[in-house]
Amino acid sequence: MKTTIEIRFNDQGLVPVIAQDWETKEVLMLAYANQEAVLLTRSSGYAHYYSRSRNKIWKKGEESGNLQEVHEILVDCDEDTLLYQVGQVGGAACHTGHRSCFFRTLDGTITGELVFDPEKVYSKSK
Amino acid sequence: MKTTIEIRFNDQGLVPVIAQDWETKEVLMLAYANQEAVLLTRSSGYAHYYSRSRNKIWKKGEESGNLQEVHEILVDCDEDTLLYQVGQVGGAACHTGHRSCFFRTLDGTITGELVFDPEKVYSKSK
Repeated sequence: MKTTIEIRFNDQGLVPVIAQDWETKEVLMLAYANQEAVLLTRSSGYAHYYSRSRNKIWKKGEESGNLQEVHEILVDCDEDTLLYQVGQVGGAACHTGHRSCFFRTLDGTITGELVFDPEKVYSKSK
Repeated sequence: MKTTIEIRFNDQGLVPVIAQDWETKEVLMLAYANQEAVLLTRSSGYAHYYSRSRNKIWKKGEESGNLQEVHEILVDCDEDTLLYQVGQVGGAACHTGHRSCFFRTLDGTITGELVFDPEKVYSKSK
């Protein structure tokens, strides 16, 4: 029987989660998950995270429609980081409209692709 | 003039850093860096991290020889995560001898490639 890996959540009950496009292998974002978010991700097949600023579970794309279909969840050697390999609905993971949240170098040069205009995707009432 | 991005270190003075193979785009590992580790990475061209367990700066591969040549450093939209795009010397990032630290699914299935025997690479006196 396969052993289920026990995830080592930190003292806030969270693990960092890297989201990677399962086809292009582009790194899309890093967010955090608690145990419930991991369970919801596994049961629904869509990426769920835990928002540290809003203190709640967050289904990626719940507002923008840019959901993440999870193909595989990998865990690292010391069981304290997860890697969601996803299909990125809408082609962009970042709220700025870029395909990846990692769209800049440290000197501010934009290297990433802009996919949508965030003004048109997110309501202005937020 | 280009603006230099100010990295938002957490209250321990750290940021998570994703290391990705710059050619294959495989995600190799996640570790943490403080400001000094980022500066050393930029000045030397080799990945440096901060070890939370040993409380010191750590040059990746300093013992195993499996250094990481940094081709680019990207920063995410909210400036609190870095992505090192690296050439992985020796072909393996993980101390277990796997190419990537993310070599297992949550049910324990090994999906990643084993590149070296850690018994032969790391001294047993550690």
